[in-house]
Amino acid sequence: MDTLDVELGPRRYPIHIGAGLLSRAELLDSVRTRPLRLISDEHVAAHYLREMQRTLALDDAQTLVLPAGETGKTMATVECVMDWLLATSLPRDGVLVALGGGVIGDLVGFCAAIYQRGIDFVQVPTTLLAQVDSSVGGKTGVNHPRGKNMIGAFHQPRLVLADTTTLATLPRRELLAGLAEIIKYGMLGDAAFFAWLEQNVDTLLALDERALRHAIRRSCEMKALIVAQDERESLAGGAGPRALLNLGHTFAHAIETFTHYSEWLHGEAVATGLCMAADLSARLGGLSAHDAQRCIRLIERSGLPVRVPAGMQVDDFRRLMSLDKKVASGKLRLILMRSLGDAIVSGDFDPAALDATLRHYTVST
Amino acid sequence: MDTLDVELGPRRYPIHIGAGLLSRAELLDSVRTRPLRLISDEHVAAHYLREMQRTLALDDAQTLVLPAGETGKTMATVECVMDWLLATSLPRDGVLVALGGGVIGDLVGFCAAIYQRGIDFVQVPTTLLAQVDSSVGGKTGVNHPRGKNMIGAFHQPRLVLADTTTLATLPRRELLAGLAEIIKYGMLGDAAFFAWLEQNVDTLLALDERALRHAIRRSCEMKALIVAQDERESLAGGAGPRALLNLGHTFAHAIETFTHYSEWLHGEAVATGLCMAADLSARLGGLSAHDAQRCIRLIERSGLPVRVPAGMQVDDFRRLMSLDKKVASGKLRLILMRSLGDAIVSGDFDPAALDATLRHYTVST
Repeated sequence: MDTLDVELGPRRYPIHIGAGLLSRAELLDSVRTRPLRLISDEHVAAHYLREMQRTLALDDAQTLVLPAGETGKTMATVECVMDWLLATSLPRDGVLVALGGGVIGDLVGFCAAIYQRGIDFVQVPTTLLAQVDSSVGGKTGVNHPRGKNMIGAFHQPRLVLADTTTLATLPRRELLAGLAEIIKYGMLGDAAFFAWLEQNVDTLLALDERALRHAIRRSCEMKALIVAQDERESLAGGAGPRALLNLGHTFAHAIETFTHYSEWLHGEAVATGLCMAADLSARLGGLSAHDAQRCIRLIERSGLPVRVPAGMQVDDFRRLMSLDKKVASGKLRLILMRSLGDAIVSGDFDPAALDATLRHYTVST
Repeated sequence: MDTLDVELGPRRYPIHIGAGLLSRAELLDSVRTRPLRLISDEHVAAHYLREMQRTLALDDAQTLVLPAGETGKTMATVECVMDWLLATSLPRDGVLVALGGGVIGDLVGFCAAIYQRGIDFVQVPTTLLAQVDSSVGGKTGVNHPRGKNMIGAFHQPRLVLADTTTLATLPRRELLAGLAEIIKYGMLGDAAFFAWLEQNVDTLLALDERALRHAIRRSCEMKALIVAQDERESLAGGAGPRALLNLGHTFAHAIETFTHYSEWLHGEAVATGLCMAADLSARLGGLSAHDAQRCIRLIERSGLPVRVPAGMQVDDFRRLMSLDKKVASGKLRLILMRSLGDAIVSGDFDPAALDATLRHYTVST
């Protein structure tokens, strides 16, 4: 097992990474004696609920199993959770445990952020995406018909258990979706890690534990370093260090909104978004054409999508990107690569290059 | 005009107190150039909306007027506000302005806390209660059928404008409700201020501007000092300095829940709660019987309620107090007075004394 500390002063917390952690009660000693509620979804509960209940000594009355899927990540579900927490009288010193993927983590984290003005929560991410991404950074929230994660809060977990054993039951598509974010970390901040991924992508996808631990740890480390510099994404009006984590995401959010969050997984949209970010970065003359091709090739080799959804047009991107949170006072900012492993935030790029990327990707679909 | 700074490090903000501040655009210079949305309620809008719109150069499309009253302080209203903010495309660097009483302040503050994971907001409190209480401390939130303020967040405003001129249109009952919280500050932390109130309560209720400014400023100062020590009410498991602000409030919340937030104003419930806290403190032998009587007499002289709602029984208090946020792991904590101007948090008091107070107040109704 590896343990990584996310350094956020009084909100510092550990991420434990390894196999078989769900049954290790001693890792939860800091919260086990407090009133607990466990929330999961139907898919994950089928595999891991009993084990988690046993570890935490919880019964079904202290457990809520929600329908699975991004469509349930709404204010309506938040209200159901609030009703349940109040009906079961969880006190203010209680703790919520989120067992599941990014949807459960974001939703339960947000519920913890607003229940009685904020209580503690523990994340037990069971997808590769949640293990490398949503378990670090404290972003919680739900979707709105007008945009993804438009309602939410920054709220840090007390601790994170990333049990690599849970990836064995993860559908292949979701495993790949997590890989997209891992590739993102190589692209935005660590060329050597990117090269390691080029060498090890097959081992990783075969769920080799050592490879998984390295990839998860390195991704969390990079994210934790960035988050520690800019906990609330507030520096430089949202154009600070933390914005770098959104490499490819402005395109991805447009794709997800266009497909109503129902056809593409977040990581799949990110995969195409990363290709578009690499393409744009090369057109703008920062990233070399060779390295842009390496990025796109690794994503394609992994089996991730490298094209936009059928029927999505340049105007769809323009409209949906303008609602993105990275638009400050009407000005679109994007994360661009100056070279492999070196990303920057830019609001000052040639719009013709963006047009060319959008045309290239929408025409080639 | 007086200006008081609430010292919260990076979240430090000013409270301006005085007559005619609504029309002083220069006080809003720090936010005026950013995208703004103004939210008020029907009662307040009838008197002050045009003036505020003029000061901020806002039109009706950038303004939302909600129905007035505590019954609208719900998640359903929060969802309406989210829909409106997204429909009008308020960006993440936008600012919400809350023009109204405590309900508007709590609701709009909570909307600002969760819109796109938190945006800035400005409070323009138009009731005495909101000016002395909800404008300091960053507590935001909404009610749930199972309890008051059960859903919310800590979110500090960027600035507060407390315009004493707006009190001229405030119904007498609401003015008195604000006075209850002012009396609370004398009782919990400043015997000299309490004595000043005994001398000046009539001048204050006649809306003398100098008296109002002194009472509002002193109340905000005391609250700000306490909040600065314990911003999120997290010290000592909620038994830290900030809990002192809840003198009388555990009783008050039970009264408000019993009457479904519809018959009693918050400050009226606090008035009776303060009497009960003084009664209990005297029974426990801290506060002298003489000073307990001074507290009850000042509240009664002001025209505030000193008795519990008709029909409310000891068991109603027991049941409703156990849901209070000040219950930690099943143990009820109360704020008690050791002497006039000196309150403490206690979870270790003689339950027989509490029973006696509850019986005394429910029998005498």
